[in-house]
Amino acid sequence: MPQLSSRITMLNEGGSDGWEVFYRARALVAAGEPVTELTIGEHDIGTDPAILQAIHDAARGGHTGYAMVPGVSALREAVASRITRRTGVPTTPDNVLITPGGQAALFAAHMAVLTPGDAALYIDPYYATYPGTIRAASGRAVPVATRAADAFLPRGEAIQAAARDTNAKSLLVNTPNNPTGMVYPQETLKEIAQACTDNDLWLISDEVYDTQVWQGAHVSPRSLPGMVDRTLIVGSMSKSHAMTGSRAGWLVGPTEAIDRLIDLATATTYGVPGYIQDGALFALEQGAGLEQQIAEPFRRRRDLALSVIEGQNTVKAIPAQGAMYLMLDIRATGLSGRDFAEALLDDHRIAVMPGESFGKSAAGHVRVALTVADDRLAEALHTLCSFAETKARAHA
Amino acid sequence: MPQLSSRITMLNEGGSDGWEVFYRARALVAAGEPVTELTIGEHDIGTDPAILQAIHDAARGGHTGYAMVPGVSALREAVASRITRRTGVPTTPDNVLITPGGQAALFAAHMAVLTPGDAALYIDPYYATYPGTIRAASGRAVPVATRAADAFLPRGEAIQAAARDTNAKSLLVNTPNNPTGMVYPQETLKEIAQACTDNDLWLISDEVYDTQVWQGAHVSPRSLPGMVDRTLIVGSMSKSHAMTGSRAGWLVGPTEAIDRLIDLATATTYGVPGYIQDGALFALEQGAGLEQQIAEPFRRRRDLALSVIEGQNTVKAIPAQGAMYLMLDIRATGLSGRDFAEALLDDHRIAVMPGESFGKSAAGHVRVALTVADDRLAEALHTLCSFAETKARAHA
Repeated sequence: MPQLSSRITMLNEGGSDGWEVFYRARALVAAGEPVTELTIGEHDIGTDPAILQAIHDAARGGHTGYAMVPGVSALREAVASRITRRTGVPTTPDNVLITPGGQAALFAAHMAVLTPGDAALYIDPYYATYPGTIRAASGRAVPVATRAADAFLPRGEAIQAAARDTNAKSLLVNTPNNPTGMVYPQETLKEIAQACTDNDLWLISDEVYDTQVWQGAHVSPRSLPGMVDRTLIVGSMSKSHAMTGSRAGWLVGPTEAIDRLIDLATATTYGVPGYIQDGALFALEQGAGLEQQIAEPFRRRRDLALSVIEGQNTVKAIPAQGAMYLMLDIRATGLSGRDFAEALLDDHRIAVMPGESFGKSAAGHVRVALTVADDRLAEALHTLCSFAETKARAHA
Repeated sequence: MPQLSSRITMLNEGGSDGWEVFYRARALVAAGEPVTELTIGEHDIGTDPAILQAIHDAARGGHTGYAMVPGVSALREAVASRITRRTGVPTTPDNVLITPGGQAALFAAHMAVLTPGDAALYIDPYYATYPGTIRAASGRAVPVATRAADAFLPRGEAIQAAARDTNAKSLLVNTPNNPTGMVYPQETLKEIAQACTDNDLWLISDEVYDTQVWQGAHVSPRSLPGMVDRTLIVGSMSKSHAMTGSRAGWLVGPTEAIDRLIDLATATTYGVPGYIQDGALFALEQGAGLEQQIAEPFRRRRDLALSVIEGQNTVKAIPAQGAMYLMLDIRATGLSGRDFAEALLDDHRIAVMPGESFGKSAAGHVRVALTVADDRLAEALHTLCSFAETKARAHA
């Protein structure tokens, strides 16, 4: 076999992807073991049958040929209206590229702004694919560390220093945040915007959890002064409409960037199934009611989970303000997040993600996805806390 | 706006993509003008309703969450069986990655084998996205010229010379060929294999037209001695099953390469809708009958088109042996392919693709897609020939 490219062999820095606990849990489930899976951000409901019917109607109606590469006009328009409404920044269909999912949008954004070898910043802890996405675009993936004591909010000075030290071209942020559940406050957003304008950075703003906000409000950094011409928003139907498997997302940005991103899409994906786009349009047209209905269980379970955590003193929670996760500090046990997660899976068949899977900053933490029924979640968290208490006592 | 990456701004070498005639035709159609469109490789039928029903049943059945990134196991297995059957090379699901369409497979293949700056060969004339795909992967796109007198078949010596001169890492070939309709004979395939082994090249073999063969037989170069460990096959449901809009394709290659390509897919697409994969599986399970039924109109129209061409002496045809196109030599008119196509659209509202859209080797040619009803195709070709005769007389 001839050599493979360095970019593809080094995507995971030549090591593992850090998802061993997840794979082990999946293997146990496949082997018929009863595992409570609190690992990934997948709703415990399927896509709404009305949306599936809209997809089917569009396909039966003949929308089965090549769709226009930039996306179906009506969907581009609906996304533009949505972004205008949510950011207050006038946005047209020419600012929108429909992509086969949010991950494809993340990748395309980095392809658009990085020349091979350029440094690209991202905030640690981070969604698991971020560094690999930057490396796939032949960028240098540079994490910006945060502190548990700051609830993992990034500090402007840390971004500024990393941008200067590496001559970075871009910064990737995610609010509401996976894995921490934090919604970036206005002050954090201002510092991010300042770092971008001071260092001429592109901001890649992953806003796929923008309908899942329990405290405060989602503010898109695109709406801040000086940001509209340097921000690429990553959006998706996955989390807001329980359409994870349909792979429908978008990028929103300056027209000149979107024009070139259409060239890129022609060479990398050749568009998104037209009938799925029609289904996405139908879903968006249902308005905020459907989105709230889909978000509601996570709000409820977040409250429930926090109340369980409040009942003891070993495990501490980052008080999630959005998204479908809760980050738990288990450092009192003396264990790493990985060892804790492995042992919890061994002893109690409960699968959570080690904080270390999301970067060095989240060491000694585990991420709990709020993606099982309320009573099962509460029971799992009670077990997790007792387990942590036992470990902490042994450690003390 | 901060700078965009050089790779994205230079995707079309900073110029146009050569598809102006196509866009003009589309604009005329949108404006309500009656245009006979013989431009792109899109069937004049939609996807079979039974396949759409299978997609819908899978979605209704709950397959709407994230699918496994490498693809649904049963589909990987079906593709492996198909490739085993067609190439005679034992192929397992571990050799298969399901991709969101053939274009995504082409791009992923080049991402896997090219380190930025590496030269990648492709045969001229070529499918329109090829050079952009290589540039998107930060490769140097190097065309290997062919001659009309050779029916645009590549010569081994030309590939060898280009590989040596550029220290190329890969060669991209396409048989049955778009735009020429040629099916590479055994001798050409042997020369290709020799060039690959002599120069340690990866062969990226685009076989998306493998069910559309009118003369001879499709032979995958993967089946040639020494090629299994250096060949990545690009396949798709688009042409074989009239599923262009569903974006379902695959890569087949050595397990070690597919393993790394799964990492890449995690960072670039995060998989393919599960319910579409189930529909693709259903379609493959229908066997050769459905494929023949979808291919049949193109075989019939190719015969019809050749019989029209035989009735005159100005326009010459490359006698297409496969795929859904006919390449016509219009050099007797003294016009370039582009000028001929523009004038034909102006005067007769017939849209064909200039040969130049597919590379320098096809200058003075136009490509006719056999994608309208038989009588309309015959009428358009009669008009095209008379038009050419008038131009040729004026030129003489």
